[in-house]
Amino acid sequence: MEFSSKLLENAVNEMSQLPGIGKRTALRLVLHLLKRPEEQTQKLSSSLLKMRETINFCTNCHNISDSQLCEICANPRRDSQIVCVVEDIRDVMAIENTSQYRGHYHVLGGKISPMDGVGPSDLNITSLVEKVKDGKINEIIFALSSTMEGDTTNFYIYRQIENFNVVTTTIARGISVGDELEYADEVTLGRSILHRIPFETSLKS
Amino acid sequence: MEFSSKLLENAVNEMSQLPGIGKRTALRLVLHLLKRPEEQTQKLSSSLLKMRETINFCTNCHNISDSQLCEICANPRRDSQIVCVVEDIRDVMAIENTSQYRGHYHVLGGKISPMDGVGPSDLNITSLVEKVKDGKINEIIFALSSTMEGDTTNFYIYRQIENFNVVTTTIARGISVGDELEYADEVTLGRSILHRIPFETSLKS
Ligand SMILES: [Zn+2]
Ligand SMILES: [Zn+2]
Repeated sequence: MEFSSKLLENAVNEMSQLPGIGKRTALRLVLHLLKRPEEQTQKLSSSLLKMRETINFCTNCHNISDSQLCEICANPRRDSQIVCVVEDIRDVMAIENTSQYRGHYHVLGGKISPMDGVGPSDLNITSLVEKVKDGKINEIIFALSSTMEGDTTNFYIYRQIENFNVVTTTIARGISVGDELEYADEVTLGRSILHRIPFETSLKS
Repeated sequence: MEFSSKLLENAVNEMSQLPGIGKRTALRLVLHLLKRPEEQTQKLSSSLLKMRETINFCTNCHNISDSQLCEICANPRRDSQIVCVVEDIRDVMAIENTSQYRGHYHVLGGKISPMDGVGPSDLNITSLVEKVKDGKINEIIFALSSTMEGDTTNFYIYRQIENFNVVTTTIARGISVGDELEYADEVTLGRSILHRIPFETSLKS
C-alpha cells in the first residue's frame, strides 16, 4: 500500500496493530477521523492514552479499577468468602449484568494455553491460592469458558487447592459447550451461577 | 454495559464512535492495548493526533498530502492536462498501484447522494469545473464506482463541462457493475484505465 502522506501512513500502521484490524480497515477508520471534527480524534487519542497510563488493577481481584480496590471488593455487602474465578474482566461485566451474584471475583487474566505460550505463571493464580491457604475463602466458583484451555486451567487450580478447606464449584453448563461466556444471554448466565455444582461432580459428567 | 472503571468506559466509548466498531469490539481492542506495552498506545495515540492536526489536502487535486502540493501534482513528468476524477483518496492509491496512469487526479471527497444528505456543494466539484473553464484540462476521466450515486455524480459534472473544449471519458467497465473500485484487482483496474471510452458512449450502453 503506497501512501501519499507519511502522517497518514503512520496512523494507518499504528491502527492496524490492533487485533482484527487489517490495513484496509485501518485506512477506512483513519479517513473517517479526517472527515470528522478534530475534537473527535483528540478525545479518542487522549482517552486511550489516559486509560493506558493511569489505569489500575484491583490489588485484591485484579479487576480493572480506578482505585486500589475495585468497587466490588470495596463493597461491604458483598461476600468476600465466595470467589468466582474468571478469565477476563469482560466476564466480570457479563456476570455483574445478571444481578444474580453477590460474592467476589478473581480475574486470572487468561487461560493456560501451551499453544499460545501462556503458562500458569503468566496468570494471576498464585494470589488466589494464597487466599485459599490463608483460609479466607469458603467457596471457589470456576467460571471459565468450557473449552479445553478453560478445563485445563480449572483443573490446574483445583489441584493446588483441593487439600485445603474450600468448596469448589463450577457454573451450571446451561451455556453450550465451547461458547464464550461473554456472549451468553443474561438469563442463562444468571441461572448457571445460581445452579452451580461441585467441581468434582463436573469431572464425572 | 457496566464498567468497573471510568477510564476504561471513556476509552471504549470513544473507540466505538468509529464506523463498524461496536461497544464489544471497542472493549476487545481497548483491553488488547492494556495487555501490550504502554509504548504501543502512545504511538497509536500520537500518530492519530498528529495526522488529524497537521495533515494537508493538496490545493490542486484535494489528495491527502504532507505538503501544499501532493507528490503527483508536484511531479513535472505527470500530465496535468489529463485529470482522473475519483471519489476518495483510496481510489488514487488503487490506481497508482497499477502503474498504468501518468495524469493527474481530482478527489471529489464523496459522491452525490441525496439519501445521505450529500449534495454537489459538499464535494470538490467547483474547483474542477474552474480548471476546465480555464482551459487547463484536455481530458476528464470519470473513475467513480459504477453505482447510481457514481453515475449521478458523473452526469452532474458532465453537464457543467460539456460545452467546454474537453474530452470526457470513463474507465472501461471491466469491473463488475456495483463493485467498489478499491477492491478491484490491479490488472483489471489498470486495463480499465488504458481502455477508457468517451463518456457519451457510456451513456448509450
Ligand atoms: Zn477487586
Ligand atoms: Zn495533488
